[in-house]
Amino acid sequence: MPTSPVHALLFDVFGTVVDWRNTIIDEGGVLNRSLALDVDWPRFADRWRSMYQPAMEQVRGGARPWTVLDVLHRESLDVLVEEFGLQRLSAAERDHLNRVWHRLNPWPDSVAGLRRLKRHFIIAPLSNGNVSLLVNMAKHAGLPWDVILGAEIAGHYKPQAEAYLAAARLLDLPPGQCMMVAAHNDDLEAAGALGFRTAFVARPTEYGPDQETDLAPTGDWDYTMHSIAALADVLGCAGD
Amino acid sequence: MPTSPVHALLFDVFGTVVDWRNTIIDEGGVLNRSLALDVDWPRFADRWRSMYQPAMEQVRGGARPWTVLDVLHRESLDVLVEEFGLQRLSAAERDHLNRVWHRLNPWPDSVAGLRRLKRHFIIAPLSNGNVSLLVNMAKHAGLPWDVILGAEIAGHYKPQAEAYLAAARLLDLPPGQCMMVAAHNDDLEAAGALGFRTAFVARPTEYGPDQETDLAPTGDWDYTMHSIAALADVLGCAGD
Repeated sequence: MPTSPVHALLFDVFGTVVDWRNTIIDEGGVLNRSLALDVDWPRFADRWRSMYQPAMEQVRGGARPWTVLDVLHRESLDVLVEEFGLQRLSAAERDHLNRVWHRLNPWPDSVAGLRRLKRHFIIAPLSNGNVSLLVNMAKHAGLPWDVILGAEIAGHYKPQAEAYLAAARLLDLPPGQCMMVAAHNDDLEAAGALGFRTAFVARPTEYGPDQETDLAPTGDWDYTMHSIAALADVLGCAGD
Repeated sequence: MPTSPVHALLFDVFGTVVDWRNTIIDEGGVLNRSLALDVDWPRFADRWRSMYQPAMEQVRGGARPWTVLDVLHRESLDVLVEEFGLQRLSAAERDHLNRVWHRLNPWPDSVAGLRRLKRHFIIAPLSNGNVSLLVNMAKHAGLPWDVILGAEIAGHYKPQAEAYLAAARLLDLPPGQCMMVAAHNDDLEAAGALGFRTAFVARPTEYGPDQETDLAPTGDWDYTMHSIAALADVLGCAGD
């Protein structure tokens, strides 16, 4: 393992820090009751997330200019509104539902773990979420970021190299003094190839009870943990 | 006064939130004693700051490409090393001294005021300091920013319009829902002309005991206060 000291921990957010699937299911359940709907929200959440990579790929591949994730999410939602028979939702209700991504709830260990890590490291999201989404989520969930980094600041979506390199450049740190923390092996693969340190935090129910991917590390990451709190333990950050 | 609700408070930092002059004087005094120097640090601090606007003007005017403030500060420092007879400082000591701008101390009311404001608003620096400078300063001084905004993210130094507009765009807020908070009338003038709300926080000793500028508001700002804590009072943010 390299011995250069790590100064910054850069976190993937959707799935690694927050539980997007259960938050959407919970908010959807409320909507079912208040509007007398009968939507299958676990399936809705999975469909919405399945449209995420193809939408970003349009931007990564240059088929469309830089477009923030809020807009990509909304375009996917407009398709799902037809697919799931939600046409009675008003424009304001659709806008509100789209911003569920700003209101995602953290995994139970995330906030306490981040607070401990913050005492010893710069902590920042390195997410494909846009800045306003990440700021609003941090206010909602109590995520104590030092700075908001990620795709919108870089003008490139992960796993494009520029998304990672822009974060290191803005922190004025070489990649080897930054550690990418993610529940997704492909994210760590991209960061590791650029010289970033890597920590895998397994989130085996991110995609629901039948998840088959990212259950275990597929690369030689610096750390493999099962929570952000456990990462704080192994990095020597004392508890409260 | 406009009635649209304010969601974000954007702070000038050097002079408004932190006391650059006394921090430099204090660090310089330590240097005088440890290295048996006889430097007039109040004059040194004033000279360094006097080179700030001309250096940025080279970038604003297009005479040189985008250059972060750390580099501009270092170029000015190299001139002052000759002017004040500091040639015996090693390269590492010069680097350390240059980063005094990362270690500036807050005015006594800043941290408590920001903590109160953070409960009700998004709070962010909108500074000409680079991102790493602002992150390191926040860690040093305990400034609880939600997000780091400013010149480096925009690629433009204040008072150029793009510096302000990029901040509002990244927060996905219209300028009228953002309030610029500054101890400098020209900063508020530039922001106000773009539709930002404005709060003047007087810092009558920023430039030392003989300060003659920015002692009072010169425009019709939304608020005129004498501390960030007083701004929290008037905006209805409860104390601890």
